[in-house]
Amino acid sequence: MSSGPLDELIGLLARLPGLGPRSARRAALALVQKRRVLLEPLAEAMTEVARTARECLICGNIGTSEQCDICSDPKRDGSTICVVESVADLWAMERAQVFRGRYHVMGGTLSALDGIGPEDLNLPRLADRIAQDGVTEVILALGATVDGQTTAHYIADMLADRGIPVTSLAQGVPVGGELDYLDDGTITAALSARRQMR
Amino acid sequence: MSSGPLDELIGLLARLPGLGPRSARRAALALVQKRRVLLEPLAEAMTEVARTARECLICGNIGTSEQCDICSDPKRDGSTICVVESVADLWAMERAQVFRGRYHVMGGTLSALDGIGPEDLNLPRLADRIAQDGVTEVILALGATVDGQTTAHYIADMLADRGIPVTSLAQGVPVGGELDYLDDGTITAALSARRQMR
Ligand SMILES: [Zn+2]
Ligand SMILES: [Zn+2]
Repeated sequence: MSSGPLDELIGLLARLPGLGPRSARRAALALVQKRRVLLEPLAEAMTEVARTARECLICGNIGTSEQCDICSDPKRDGSTICVVESVADLWAMERAQVFRGRYHVMGGTLSALDGIGPEDLNLPRLADRIAQDGVTEVILALGATVDGQTTAHYIADMLADRGIPVTSLAQGVPVGGELDYLDDGTITAALSARRQMR
Repeated sequence: MSSGPLDELIGLLARLPGLGPRSARRAALALVQKRRVLLEPLAEAMTEVARTARECLICGNIGTSEQCDICSDPKRDGSTICVVESVADLWAMERAQVFRGRYHVMGGTLSALDGIGPEDLNLPRLADRIAQDGVTEVILALGATVDGQTTAHYIADMLADRGIPVTSLAQGVPVGGELDYLDDGTITAALSARRQMR
């Protein structure tokens, strides 16, 4: 159909979420036709991200050093930790510009179906942070899915004897909805109406 | 929201056709999470395409040398030239695996609205090829749009005094449809039922 390197590029693009074979072909053509303004900068950006991106040792966010921008920002309130499922959900929270504390990225939710247990998630580090850091509130910003709510209750139970409030986003999160798909206003409403779990 | 290189990557991904801001963020996260199997190979493939991809001097297809794979393939029938609007349409024809001649990529269609005239398209080279190459048929595989059909008639007029048949894809191309969106069977039917324009 086309030359080797281009076929290779199309095959790899088709593996990105949201791109199928047709859109991968269209994207590849657009790249070739915009070599200077799109293809070359994108190749460089990918090389740079591959070289520099790393997981924050504290929260699990993606950054370029051992501590991410949020964990190393002295203006962020370290006494409030917002627990999210994924970096995508952390970004969704940040876009709402309403939360000024720090995060903890779980890297997933508990899931009996997928065989994901507590040991597969970033849970021990959360307990450590709460023990060390003078945390006064843990906000669980997990999706209103079965697995999300199971995980929220598991974490609330895990932290029950710490004597700090564990709250969860409540009003505004549609049942069955995933956080990354919410608009900023919904996230803002859900955060301000958060309810205490215990 | 995130680190500099990642923001840069997301911004560039969002400029690909078919990807918006949200899907660009998801794609960037997938890339970071699949660094070895996706991000690094994709960065390399893009660098390689940027280094090697070039337009075929004969037909306008994309390849890695002065003549594309099709123009340099002795098994392709040089006496039949299929005129297409874009490389995407050339690929659509090739996927149907029914045409064994060579191509001529116009790089667009005539468009009064967009101010695209004959001098903006790869037309002079088409006339040259027909004069030199012992061409016995020109197949116009242009979309059934107003601009596509205007272009088809313009080319048919341009070649009127050459004494060779100029045919066009006919049956099977939906009115208002663009070639790249057709399934293989429709393209096959349209090619075999092509009608002579003059
Ligand atoms: Zn962090
Ligand atoms: Zn060629």
